[in-house]
This record gives sequence, C-alpha cells and structure tokens, in this order.
Amino acid sequence: MMDSPLEKARRIFHIENRTIVNCLSEFYCTLLLLFFGISIVHQLDLSHKQLNTWIQVNFGWGFTIMLCVYACSKTSGGHMNPAISLMFYTLGKLPLSHFFYYCIMQTLGAFIGTAFAYTVYLDQTHHVLGDLRIATGPNGTATLFTSMPAPHLSNTIAFWDQFVGTGFLALFVCVITDKRMEIPSSLHPILIGLLIATIGMGFGMNLGYPINPARDFAPRVFAAMIGYGWEVFSYHNYYFWIPIVAPFFGAIAAAWSYFIFIGFQIPDQPPSYMKENKTDGDGIPLKTTDLA
Amino acid sequence: MMDSPLEKARRIFHIENRTIVNCLSEFYCTLLLLFFGISIVHQLDLSHKQLNTWIQVNFGWGFTIMLCVYACSKTSGGHMNPAISLMFYTLGKLPLSHFFYYCIMQTLGAFIGTAFAYTVYLDQTHHVLGDLRIATGPNGTATLFTSMPAPHLSNTIAFWDQFVGTGFLALFVCVITDKRMEIPSSLHPILIGLLIATIGMGFGMNLGYPINPARDFAPRVFAAMIGYGWEVFSYHNYYFWIPIVAPFFGAIAAAWSYFIFIGFQIPDQPPSYMKENKTDGDGIPLKTTDLA
Amino acid sequence: MMDSPLEKARRIFHIENRTIVNCLSEFYCTLLLLFFGISIVHQLDLSHKQLNTWIQVNFGWGFTIMLCVYACSKTSGGHMNPAISLMFYTLGKLPLSHFFYYCIMQTLGAFIGTAFAYTVYLDQTHHVLGDLRIATGPNGTATLFTSMPAPHLSNTIAFWDQFVGTGFLALFVCVITDKRMEIPSSLHPILIGLLIATIGMGFGMNLGYPINPARDFAPRVFAAMIGYGWEVFSYHNYYFWIPIVAPFFGAIAAAWSYFIFIGFQIPDQPPSYMKENKTDGDGIPLKTTDLA
Amino acid sequence: MMDSPLEKARRIFHIENRTIVNCLSEFYCTLLLLFFGISIVHQLDLSHKQLNTWIQVNFGWGFTIMLCVYACSKTSGGHMNPAISLMFYTLGKLPLSHFFYYCIMQTLGAFIGTAFAYTVYLDQTHHVLGDLRIATGPNGTATLFTSMPAPHLSNTIAFWDQFVGTGFLALFVCVITDKRMEIPSSLHPILIGLLIATIGMGFGMNLGYPINPARDFAPRVFAAMIGYGWEVFSYHNYYFWIPIVAPFFGAIAAAWSYFIFIGFQIPDQPPSYMKENKTDGDGIPLKTTDLA
Repeated sequence: MMDSPLEKARRIFHIENRTIVNCLSEFYCTLLLLFFGISIVHQLDLSHKQLNTWIQVNFGWGFTIMLCVYACSKTSGGHMNPAISLMFYTLGKLPLSHFFYYCIMQTLGAFIGTAFAYTVYLDQTHHVLGDLRIATGPNGTATLFTSMPAPHLSNTIAFWDQFVGTGFLALFVCVITDKRMEIPSSLHPILIGLLIATIGMGFGMNLGYPINPARDFAPRVFAAMIGYGWEVFSYHNYYFWIPIVAPFFGAIAAAWSYFIFIGFQIPDQPPSYMKENKTDGDGIPLKTTDLA
Repeated sequence: MMDSPLEKARRIFHIENRTIVNCLSEFYCTLLLLFFGISIVHQLDLSHKQLNTWIQVNFGWGFTIMLCVYACSKTSGGHMNPAISLMFYTLGKLPLSHFFYYCIMQTLGAFIGTAFAYTVYLDQTHHVLGDLRIATGPNGTATLFTSMPAPHLSNTIAFWDQFVGTGFLALFVCVITDKRMEIPSSLHPILIGLLIATIGMGFGMNLGYPINPARDFAPRVFAAMIGYGWEVFSYHNYYFWIPIVAPFFGAIAAAWSYFIFIGFQIPDQPPSYMKENKTDGDGIPLKTTDLA
Repeated sequence: MMDSPLEKARRIFHIENRTIVNCLSEFYCTLLLLFFGISIVHQLDLSHKQLNTWIQVNFGWGFTIMLCVYACSKTSGGHMNPAISLMFYTLGKLPLSHFFYYCIMQTLGAFIGTAFAYTVYLDQTHHVLGDLRIATGPNGTATLFTSMPAPHLSNTIAFWDQFVGTGFLALFVCVITDKRMEIPSSLHPILIGLLIATIGMGFGMNLGYPINPARDFAPRVFAAMIGYGWEVFSYHNYYFWIPIVAPFFGAIAAAWSYFIFIGFQIPDQPPSYMKENKTDGDGIPLKTTDLA
Repeated sequence: MMDSPLEKARRIFHIENRTIVNCLSEFYCTLLLLFFGISIVHQLDLSHKQLNTWIQVNFGWGFTIMLCVYACSKTSGGHMNPAISLMFYTLGKLPLSHFFYYCIMQTLGAFIGTAFAYTVYLDQTHHVLGDLRIATGPNGTATLFTSMPAPHLSNTIAFWDQFVGTGFLALFVCVITDKRMEIPSSLHPILIGLLIATIGMGFGMNLGYPINPARDFAPRVFAAMIGYGWEVFSYHNYYFWIPIVAPFFGAIAAAWSYFIFIGFQIPDQPPSYMKENKTDGDGIPLKTTDLA
C-alpha cells in the first residue's frame, strides 16, 4: 500500500487536530446536503411537479441525508443540524464549544451549498421566473429556498410544527444510535434517511419540514441576496426566527422523553427469562419479537 | 462513562418492574405511531392529494411502524396492536394479564397520539373544513381519523377485509420473527415496515387498512368528541365494531396457518444434503436458494 | 421451552417427509403471493388509479415476493414460479421429479390465491363492473387477473417480452444466490423483491410482466370460470400459451449466460493482489470496489 | 459437489486471464444496464407517463445499477462508467491500460444493450411514433435514447450539470467503498443504487442525468443509425461531446475533494476517547453517532 497515490496524499493532507477535522466534516457535509437538497426542491418547483412530485422531495432529502451521514460518520458524526448538535450536547456527547463551532460550520456550509444548487438551475430559473423574484403571495417563489408559511397558518402552529418535526427527528436519532438498541452502526444512516423521508410524509404540509435551523436560515439569507430582498425575513410577522428557534426546543424535549419512557428502561443485560424465551412465572412478559 | 448526564439520569429514572416498563413502552410507541400516522392521513386529505398521494400513506405508515418497533424492540416488543398482542398470547409468548395491559395502554396511547396530530394540523383543518365536521357522505371527513366504509361495501366484506389484512400482518410477523428463519433481529423492524406498506397496496381500497383495533377505535372516539358526533359509531349499521373484532380472528387464524404449513416444518438442523448442497439420492430437493 | 404451545403443536404437526413439506411450502407461498398480488392489481384497476398507481404495482409485487421468499427460504426455497424451478433443475439444484411437483403446487396455489383475492374485492368489483365481464377491448377487464396484450402488439414481441422479463429475473436470482458473491442470505429476499419491482419498471408496458407461468395461467382459468369465458384463451390468436412457454426459455438462457460471462469466472480464492489491494505488476487490475 | 452440472461447466468455461474476465464482466454488465435502463425510459415516454412516472426512472435506474454492481462485484468491480473507471485510475486502483479496456467494453456493451431494449419495444415504438424519427423540437423523441437539452439551456450549464451530477456519483462511491468507513461490502451496491436514484431526484431536470459517457454516447450512435440521423450529434451546437467529457472532470474533482475534506482525516485507529465514549479533556468531541 506504500505506493498508492491515495496513501501518499493522505500523508500530505492528514490533519491531526480533531476539532479542525470535525469542523471541516460538518462544513463539507452540510454543503453537500444543501447542494443536493435545494436542487431537489428546484426540480420540483421549476418543473411544476412534472418531474419531481412530493415523493421525490421525501425520498430525495432522506437519501441525501443518509449519504451525508455516512460521509461524516467516522469524523464529526454527521449532525448537519444545530438542533441535533444541541441535543447531543445536552446528552453529554458534544462539548459546548463544539456545539458553537458546529453551528457556524453548518450554517456556512448550508449557505455555500445553496449557492452551488442555484448555479446548476440558473438557466431553468431564468426560463421559468424571468427576472422576477417575488417572495410571497400566489406567485411567490421564495419556497425554492426556504420555508414560507401560508397566510392561514398562525405562527403559533408554525412553532409547534417545527417543535414536533424536529422532535421526531431527534427522538428517533436517539433510538437508532442508542447502543442498547444494538442496531448495527452501518444501518444507522439508512434508518435516519428513512426517518427524514417519513417526517416529510407526516409533517410537511405546514412548512415543508425544514426542521433544521441551518437548512432554513442560510438559504433564506441567500434568497434575500439574489433579489427576494428583506421580505423573506419580514413576511408573516417576522416568521423567520421560528424555524431557527423551535427546533432546539423540540429536539431536546423529544430526545429526553425517549430516554425517560424507553431508553433508561432497557436492561443492561437481558433478564434470563428473555434468553430462555419462555413465560416468566411472575407474569413478566418475555421478549416477544423472537418466536421459538 | 460515570460522568455522562445520560447515565446519571438513568440511575434516577430507571424502573425495575418490567410490567410497568412494558406498559410505558407500548403506551409511548402507540402514541408516536398515531401521532405520526394520523398526521400522514391529514396531509393526504387536507392537501387534496397535492402533497401526499397513496404511496406516502403506504410508505409513511410503514416506516413509522418500523421506527416505533425499533423503539420498543428491547422492552415491550413493539406490538402497538391488540390483535398482534393476542396472537403472541396464543403462541405462548405473552401472559394473558399482559395482553389486557397492552390493549389498554395501546388504546390510550392511540388516543393521545391522535390528539397531538390534530393539534399540528389545527389551522389547516380550519382552513379546509371551516367549522363543519361532517362524518359521512360525499363531503364526509371522518376518514381523517378512522375507517368509514363506502355505502356499496357490505359489512360482511368489511369483516373479511379486516380479517385478511390483519391476517397478512400477523402471518408475516411470525415469518420475520421466527428464530428458525434466522433473519437478523436488526432487520425485523425494516421488514415489518415494508410489510405494512405492502398491505396498504393490496388491501387498502375497502377500508384503508386499519388492521389494528386500537388504531381504528381510539381515533374514532376522538373524532366523535371534536364534533363528528355519534354518527361515527352508528354509521353503516354500527360498522365500528368490525375493525375492532375482525383483526383478532384474522391474526390468530393466519399466524397458526403459517406454523402448520411452514413454521413447524422447518428442520431444527439442516439435513446433511443441504449442507453439502447436492441432490439427495432419494430425490429430495436440496435447498435451492444458494448456488454452489 | 417445553411448555410452549408452539413447541407442543410442532410435535403434533411436524412432517418428516421433505417432499411433502416442500410441496406444502410452494403451495402455501404461491397462494399468498397471488392472494396479495391480484389484490394489488384490483386496487389499481377498480380505483381507476386513484389509490394505487403503477409504482404500487411495482413495489407491491416486489415486496410481496420478498415476504413470500422469506417464508419459504428454509423449506422449499421459495420459487413460486415454474420457470425458476426449471432453471434450478438445469443447474442441478432441483430433482426433475420435484420440478413437476413444484409446478403443480404452484399452479394450484396460484388458483386458490386468486380466488381469495377475488372475494376481498367482491363488492368493489360489483360496484365498478356491475354484472358485465368483458374480457377484451376498450372496456375489457380481464387484466384484473391475467395478461391481455394490446391489439398492436404482435405475438412475436410478446414472446420476446416474456423471454426477456423472465430472463432478467432468473439471471439476477443467480447473481443474488451465487455463493461466490458472498451476499448474506438474509438479504437475498430483499434483493429479489427489488429485482421484481425493477422489472416492472422496465418491462411492464407490453404485457404487465407476468414472467411466471403459474401467475399468468391460473388466474386466467379463474377468470374464464367467473364469467369472462373462453375469450381469455382464444384472444389474440391464442396468445395465452406465450406467458406459459416463453418464461422457461428465457430463464434458462439468461441464467446460463450469467454463469458463462461472470459466474464461472469468479475466483474461488481472491488472488493475493486483491487482498493486498494494490496494483499487480502485470497490469492486472485489483478489485476496485474497496478503497484503501 | 463433483457431479453438479454447474461445477462441470465451470471447469470448461473458466478463464484464467483476469484481464479478459474483467473485460467480459464490464461488457456484460453495461449491456444489462442499458438493456434495462433504456427500457425504463421507453416505458416512461411511450406510455406518455401513464405507466412509469419520474419516480420509476429514479428507482428503476438505481436498482438496475445496484443489481449490475452486485453482478460484477467479484470480478471487474462493476464500474460500467468510464468516468468512474478514470476516477479509480487516479486513485491508483486501476491500471491505465485497464481504463482504456474498460472504456471500450463499456461503450460496446452500452450499444448492444440499447439495441436489445429497442427490440422489446419495437411494436410500441411503431404504434406511438409511426415511421417518424424526429430527433428534436416539440415532437422530438431522441430522448428515448440519449440526452437532448432544451433550447433554453446553455452548453455551459450543461457542462456544469454533468460535472456536478457525475461528481456526486463519484464522491459518494468513494464514501461508500472507503474501507475506513467500515460499511459491509454487501451493502455497497444497495447504497450506490439509492445514490443513483437520488441524483435523478436532484439533478435530472437539465439533461436527465446521463452522468456516464458510455450511457450517453452509445445510445446516441444507435439513435443516429435507426433513423434519427446526424441531428443527434449536431443539435444544440454539437452538445453531444459535453456528457462525454464533463463527467471525467467532475468525477476526479469530487472524489479528491472527498478525500481532502474527510477521507484523509479518518483516523486509522479510533482515538481512546472515542472508544470510551466520553468527552475528551481537551474539548475534542467524541464520536457522537453512538449513545451510551
């Protein structure tokens, strides 16, 4: 393996400092995530649902996150979401300093990824939208980039929607990665991808499930810069802060609810009646997912 | 690991009594299941199939069940369905007392999960339905919560439909969890999720595949309480008991048919001609799924 | 485990004769397959594609076959298709006598499974079709059960279509189950299911991909009996024999082509330059799917 | 195993020369890939999206590639794409001579596979198109075979689109196959298949994601030969060279970006604080994908 160009290059480019490595990973993967994901949304809207329909938004974002989590799984852990990073901090799995580093890198990566996606569909955007960049209303197209609630949706429900959606994400990330669940780690990203897809099937109607402060905020800034203007912030009584703040609360509440209801209750060693797979004399049910 | 906030909290919240733990798990996971699943149905109906189509109902419920089965897999087993619990009881895998505990916790969880889902789509519901809550007929919307058969469907076929749908569920749950099948337990929830999705593709037209007494009954009570009234029970000659009762019969009949036709016939040790992978002299076929 | 009702029942119902066991398995699983699959097609056609669309036909049949292959994987091998059984016979993996037993049991199971599916949608069929059972033409509905080619499709292309479709099935079944491929056996049914789904995406337009003599013939007999009459056989210049005969030729030809081009060429032991993962001095490429 | 017809035939047909074996594999699998894939596109276009919709193009090509990668995984590695072969060459995983052999076999296989697909849909093509073979414009149908950009798409963006699409493919192929990622090799083809599907959801609108010089060029030649004529080359200011050239640049750039940002930074041995799963004193985050 001495002569492989890869191993040679590894010796040149390898960075020892894990903080820098993890920051690079979060930046790079969030960039890829938004590059991919914003392109999926563009393909939905710019084709007027003739190519992508909602199912591609679901599976497309899901599999993209799956792939990006794989990519980061051996370095930063693949959060790509400040709310998930905060959740891991509250669980004692991420130092506070790193939570801040991660947030910055995630938001930066999200911004640049959005810009890349925009370039790929530059001609299509011009063809469909012309020179108009109307943020809101019946002809509004800022949803190409970020969440814009319908007028009939209150900001209270919007907050609750982001609390719930991010909550489900955080909760099942805890289920999937809980060591006591004994799910092989090579399956984790697949399950997280399917989880994202499912959230889009259940909680996508109100706001399009941003459930990620970096994913919602960075493209909003980008949209403002390319012509949609200040309205993407001021719209709907300054709604824009909701998908930034609500996910943090939802992620923490849901993750801890999982641990209280289930995670803390998983025995360290399966009790003997489970191993022998018969009914315990005290009426304690045995594990029922395996039949003799 | 001494200092982890998670492990500290575990010592505080850990419950030793397995009956309570299992009840908590069934309650919590059925709550999550209905919270998620009823939201999927709301997204289908309230968007007039502009977001979700039937495929999202199939995969959405399927993956939700997959995730919830993972969540409960190390505690209560993740039934979330009284018919499945009864089936496990008849197989000697669940004490009778626990069957009753499970039924209660599942129904309670289903009710509260439905209520949560309702809150997420409160504004959308008001926007689409206004103040009207018409249970049945061309403008009936009780199907947002529970099964309501079309007038041309007889209750006999409705019973048979629920018998069959739950039967397929129970049958393949037995296949998947049968230890002699040697399917890795980390794959079980994935396969059960795909099973649910497939049932919706084959047996969803008559009633929308409730195939779960708790999933059908608890949201029906909720629907009655929020304005749909008694009609959700009295409709179609008091149809409401059918998706409660039929699944129990279907689950037991189908599960045992599997064991009689296949499960009991799987040899404990693969016969020698299987291992050597050649044709037995007596004309007995060798195992044909592996090519030399 | 002595007291388990399951183990008690196993001692009563266990059959020693492997031939009978395998026949029971093929019968039971083909019954389940057609019960499920014909229901999927009914849900497509009777809902006028308002519930199922073509994607559910693809994934529905695919996952159903996945589940049924799991169910039979430890007994008969889960062929459920005479063409696959013949292919295994030519590979020396199934005795000739068993090929005939399997064909009979598969066709019998397919017939009864079709009858079951019919009962589930009895009311819907009556609602949509009334008392009319028109086999062919613009209002023809025999496709609820079996393949009926469009008038502009020649029988030559129909034969080629079934040759190709079943060929792809057989070919990749050989890939998936080839021991030298080292794919874990618990993944085989999943891959076979996805294979079936994919065939429906590529080769479903001409005839709806029966690619299985039992799946096409048995429901055709059933359709003739419930009122579609002799026309299901005589239509299109007695087309009905094509999806019975062509699959046998396609399966054998494609399976052997795989072994000649690839299967026979897989080394028994990976050569040393593969293990060390570097470029061989003789310009022989190393295995390129793993990066150092 | 001595008497198995398979093993007998293996002794006859086995080829020792690995170069020939690998060339046969690439030829055969690329043939299968285009046979399957071009059929999927035909089913989309010839049915006017009544059977296949865009989701089947995504999953159909994805699963086809999954199956073909499995088929080649123990011989040539399953590139089926000159850009991927070049990428592996730059990583030191493929000798330069083999890169050229692979390109030739891939293009040859793609051509013959296209011809096979054409035969399956001969009657349908005649039924829908009659004798007209119009390459471009509102009634152009050359997209049955190869990419034809819309008039409003510049060749610059077309180049960038193919650079990006192939880049994502190459990048995540490196992630998936990187040994330091420790993803079981039996999962690699599944993930690559989902990757292809996802690329079609994000980068399919401009050109239909050929992202493979052989997949785009060989069917273009075939289309020219069956009546579409020279226009498939001259159209859009000789666009045809773009999906041949751009993928090579994209694949190399993206693959190396992965290694620089992440691949080279994965530690050979997980540091001790990762194993013990606690917070490192220096504020270095521990691996966060596994919860204690």
